[in-house]
Formats: sequence, C-alpha cells, structure tokens
Amino acid sequence: MNFKVDKPNDEIKNQLAQKIDNKTKPPGSLGRLEEIAKKIGLIQQTTEPQLSTPTILVFSGDHGIATEGVSPFPQEVTQQMVLNFINEGAAINVFAKQNGIDIKVIDSGVKGDFDETSKQKIINLKIAEGTKSFLHGPAMTNEQCNEAIQKGAEMVQECYENGCNVIGFGEMGIGNTSPSAMLMHLITGEPLETCAGKGTGLNSEGVSKKREILAESLRHYHQDGSPVEMLTHFGGFELAMIAGAFLKAAENKMTIMVDGFNVTAALLVAQKIEPNVLEYCIFAHQSDEKGHQKMLQHLNAEPLLHLGMRLGEGTGAAVAYPLIKASVNFLNKMASFEEAGVSNTE
Amino acid sequence: MNFKVDKPNDEIKNQLAQKIDNKTKPPGSLGRLEEIAKKIGLIQQTTEPQLSTPTILVFSGDHGIATEGVSPFPQEVTQQMVLNFINEGAAINVFAKQNGIDIKVIDSGVKGDFDETSKQKIINLKIAEGTKSFLHGPAMTNEQCNEAIQKGAEMVQECYENGCNVIGFGEMGIGNTSPSAMLMHLITGEPLETCAGKGTGLNSEGVSKKREILAESLRHYHQDGSPVEMLTHFGGFELAMIAGAFLKAAENKMTIMVDGFNVTAALLVAQKIEPNVLEYCIFAHQSDEKGHQKMLQHLNAEPLLHLGMRLGEGTGAAVAYPLIKASVNFLNKMASFEEAGVSNTE
Repeated sequence: MNFKVDKPNDEIKNQLAQKIDNKTKPPGSLGRLEEIAKKIGLIQQTTEPQLSTPTILVFSGDHGIATEGVSPFPQEVTQQMVLNFINEGAAINVFAKQNGIDIKVIDSGVKGDFDETSKQKIINLKIAEGTKSFLHGPAMTNEQCNEAIQKGAEMVQECYENGCNVIGFGEMGIGNTSPSAMLMHLITGEPLETCAGKGTGLNSEGVSKKREILAESLRHYHQDGSPVEMLTHFGGFELAMIAGAFLKAAENKMTIMVDGFNVTAALLVAQKIEPNVLEYCIFAHQSDEKGHQKMLQHLNAEPLLHLGMRLGEGTGAAVAYPLIKASVNFLNKMASFEEAGVSNTE
Repeated sequence: MNFKVDKPNDEIKNQLAQKIDNKTKPPGSLGRLEEIAKKIGLIQQTTEPQLSTPTILVFSGDHGIATEGVSPFPQEVTQQMVLNFINEGAAINVFAKQNGIDIKVIDSGVKGDFDETSKQKIINLKIAEGTKSFLHGPAMTNEQCNEAIQKGAEMVQECYENGCNVIGFGEMGIGNTSPSAMLMHLITGEPLETCAGKGTGLNSEGVSKKREILAESLRHYHQDGSPVEMLTHFGGFELAMIAGAFLKAAENKMTIMVDGFNVTAALLVAQKIEPNVLEYCIFAHQSDEKGHQKMLQHLNAEPLLHLGMRLGEGTGAAVAYPLIKASVNFLNKMASFEEAGVSNTE
C-alpha cells in the first residue's frame, strides 16, 4: 500500500494571480474566494479549472469503545442512521441534494446486518461488525487496518474514474469522537483534555468520564507510534477508510473538501503518511467539537465556515461546496476590465 | 412616507424549537443554521417556511464626493459597472446565477446616459446625475431623499407582488464608502477613524486624505440629526433607495439578506426610522472594509460568513444564500427521529 502524492508545480501561480487581478473588481476584494480559486487552479494546473461530479463518501462504522459509555446515543443509532441516509432523511442528504453533490453511503464496519432492499443502496465494504474496545487492547488488527485504508482508496479511485474531481468525506459511527480524540492526542501532542469534547452532546460529567476512559486506554498502547499503528490501535474502520481516501484523492490530484472533527482526525493520520496530501485540501467548516480548532491550527488550516455545527456525516463539506463553486465560477465567468470596458485604478 | 413594521409574534418559537430538536441529529448540532431556520419560521409565522423568488436589487448611483479624491477608481466606473451588470460580467451576476437568485439592475442616480439597448435592461429610477459633493453642502435636497426612499420601497413592493419573499440589496457607486462612513459616524457615534477605511483599495495615504475630507465635511452639517436629514446631507441616491427598500421589505414580512458596509449603512438609517426592521434581517457577510465589524456590533449582528470580501454589489448576500436555503431545507426535509426510526438520546 503505497501512495505517491506530488506537490503541485507552482509555476502557474503568477498566471492565476494575474487572471484574478484582471477581473472587474478591486484587487483582492473577493477575499478567501480568490485564495480558493488559486488553490484549485494550482491543483488542476490550469487557469480554467472545472469542478466535476462533486461527491461525498459517507463512511459508517461501529466502535467497541461506544459500549464503555462515551456517547449519549446508543450504538444501534449507527445502523439506524445508515438507513436514514439511504432513505434520504438525514442532514447530509438534504444539503447534498440542494447543492448538487452525489453521496455514496458506505458500510465500513457497522454492527448488524441490513435487509436485502437496503443492501442495494449501501456500498458494502464491511471489515467487521464494529471494532473492539480500545480500552482493553487494539481496536482492530493490522491486517484489518490496511484493508480499510485500501478499500477507502479504491472507493475514491472508482469515483475518480467516473469523472469526479472534487470530493469530500463524511462519517457516522456512534462513539467515534473517542478514537478521533486519541489520534489527535498522539499526533498533535495536545493533552486529552483538549482533544476530548462533548461529541454528540455529553454533559460535563459525561465528558469527564470520557476523558478518564481515554486516559485509561493509553495503558494498553505501547507501539512505536507509526500513524498506521495508531489507527490500528484506536480505530475505527470508517476513519481508516477516510485516511486511505484522502491519500488516493490527493494522488489523483482531486480537490478535497475537509469536513469536521472526525474527518480531520483521519487527515492527521494521512498527512503523517504523506504530508503533500494537504496541498489538495480545502477546509470546509470549523466544528463546534472542542478539539477541532486545535487540529486545524496544527495543520495551519483556516476553514471557510464557522457555523457552530457539530454533526458529522460530511455536512460541513456539503454546505461549504457552493463557496468552492463560486470561487471557480468567478475565475471562469467574470469579465476582465478589458472585456467589460471598465477603467482600472489609475 | 410611513412604514409600519411589526415585530413578529413569537408564540411560534416553541413549536419551531421542538420541530428542530426532533430532527435526526444531536440537539443544536446544526449551529447557526438552526438559528436561521427559527428566524425565518418566525418571520413567516410557520414551521414550514418557504423561500420564493430570491432576488437581489442592485442600486447604483454617483457621488459628488468622488470628485474630491476619496476613491482610487475614476467616477465613470459606476456607469461602466452598470453596463457590466447588464452584460452579466460582474461578480454579482456570476454568484446570483449560480445560486438561483434573480437580480435587478437599478439606476438610482448614475452620472451619464445609457444607450437605448442598455436602457431596456436597466430599471430607471434616476433621481439626478449623481449627488452634489457633501464637502461643500448637502448631497441632495430633502425632496430628492424622500423620493429615493419612496422609489426604493416601490421597487421592493413590486418584487413582493411578483412572489418574492427573500430579498437582498447590492450597491454600486464610486466613492460610496464615504457617505456610508459619515452615516455610520453620525448614527453609531464611532470616530471617523473607525468609520472610514480603504474602500475599493486606497493606500494608507489615501485613507488619511479621505478621513480629512470627511472630517472637513462635518463643518457644513448643522442639522438636528434625524436619520432622513443625515441621509439628505451625505447621500447617496442608492443608499436612500436601499433604506426605503429595507423598510418596505420588513413591512411586507420578507426575509432580508444584509450585504456589506454600504448596505449596512443604509440599514443603520432604516432601523433609526423603524427599529423592528432588524427582526427581518439575516446578516450575510462581514466585509473586510474596516468599519463594518463595528457597524455589526452596533446592531448586535453576527454575520454568517467571514470571507474577507469587500466588493459590494450584493455579493455577500449572494454567496450566503445557499446557507439560508440550507436552513429552510433541513427544517422542511430532514426526517424526525420517529419518522426515521432512529433512537434518541437516552
């Protein structure tokens, strides 16, 4: 499993800047949209970038740690929400549909089976029926982790071959802010107090308990600290698939819309494997989950949106997409001073 | 010229909160989108609000003060940009088209005449060929100011009668951050240093000169300080029309998307006339123009977006619209816990 992620050749930067400065507007006046337009032009190595078949892959999996009391929701909600996704009743369905984004619902390792009708709408990449509780040992085996990374990558490859060049990842998995907090702790060095927050809605007592459990779980972790080993030990299957998906998307020079806390945790792992993956990332939304801001600081990332959302599913990416589209559209469609016969500054 | 703006009856608030909390998501996890959904539900007095015929009115006018050297762009750019709007080459055209928003281009008082072909695409509400320079006296007469307010209101009324219930205002007028800075100074009490910024791109020397001119202009202002008198003295025609447009839109219980610095200056005037106008406003974007943040603080407003834009034309409203639409869509289209068979928190 090797990924080769190149840094984009930045020779085109000047051409992009020049094109943007010739648009009928004061220089710099489109703010962050100008920055995004430059980034996508750089990724696609053209002054006329196009966004095609925008897609969000929603990876779902269960977590053994959820049985230790780290979430206010019962574990069966993972499976119930997967059914909600295929019935188009969840937030991600509504936002993706509004903004013309395809979504694919993936069973990365959900506990429980689906009926035949549902199976037709779910992409089955199930590694196992949920991970083991990392309070007592590794969440998964090394083989399972590698398989998940590989399957996430293959999923992206399939989208890429079908014409997608802009992609986001979402996740569903009751308890998964716990593995994400552990990955954040190990990769950024931030204390668990910063990394573990209220998730879907723990009260302060619940958050304290979650932190105790996470601190306790470190006792069983004696690895040398490679990113794949961290992922193996703390899981989950959906996070490993997302890490693989990031790497393959960057290898394919796709524009990647980065969602919230859990997805960024998977990105922390991916960029430890291949730092250049960050060259392809546009950060969509800063989650209200406590640790996300610090994660973003660690990656020198400034997200487009700060809406206080903390829902997962890829919703941050889905609501940010029109801004990314606006960036490409102004670059391609606005008139230049010359074309419009508008006088420039003297 | 009287406007009657009622405060929405807030009895429906509990019903809206209950509907939102029953959606398949952790409580509060859609952050500001939940707040916007509640606001629009309140405005429309229903738990099933609809957004119809979203429209942005782009009011354009010239300013005598522009001849005193307060802008790096020559005054003829106002007219040139109006032509750019009708030829669909400006940023507002690109963003409005992308997001399904109608735009109407209005000549509020542009200097110069348009050819016959262009005239067919421009709504002619011209009060005069630009205002007078307020460095030497009032920018307009009281009659002109009242006429502009009235025409702005009539323009909104026409949209309303054609089925529009969500509206934004844009502006074009070389030099118009100067009148806006004066209105801000008089209404908020902030010093001119805070109110006057770089506009379309003055350097620091240019900003200093602009501030001196604005300070000097206060010598000729000896009115009693009614909002309409401020508007009369400092202008411009597009700002007066926008003030009238705000008042009529609020009277009609329309949802109003508030754009950047100049549009918010017009809102400062409108809310001095009728404070309840704010109940109908959703603040779209915080402009990079220096004074906007303080204006927003004065209004207790937290905009949806912070993208560092400072372009005017209604672009902030246009790019924020998909978030407003997402708020209404999740309220109407997401499944409830019961509908989806998803377990709620225990």
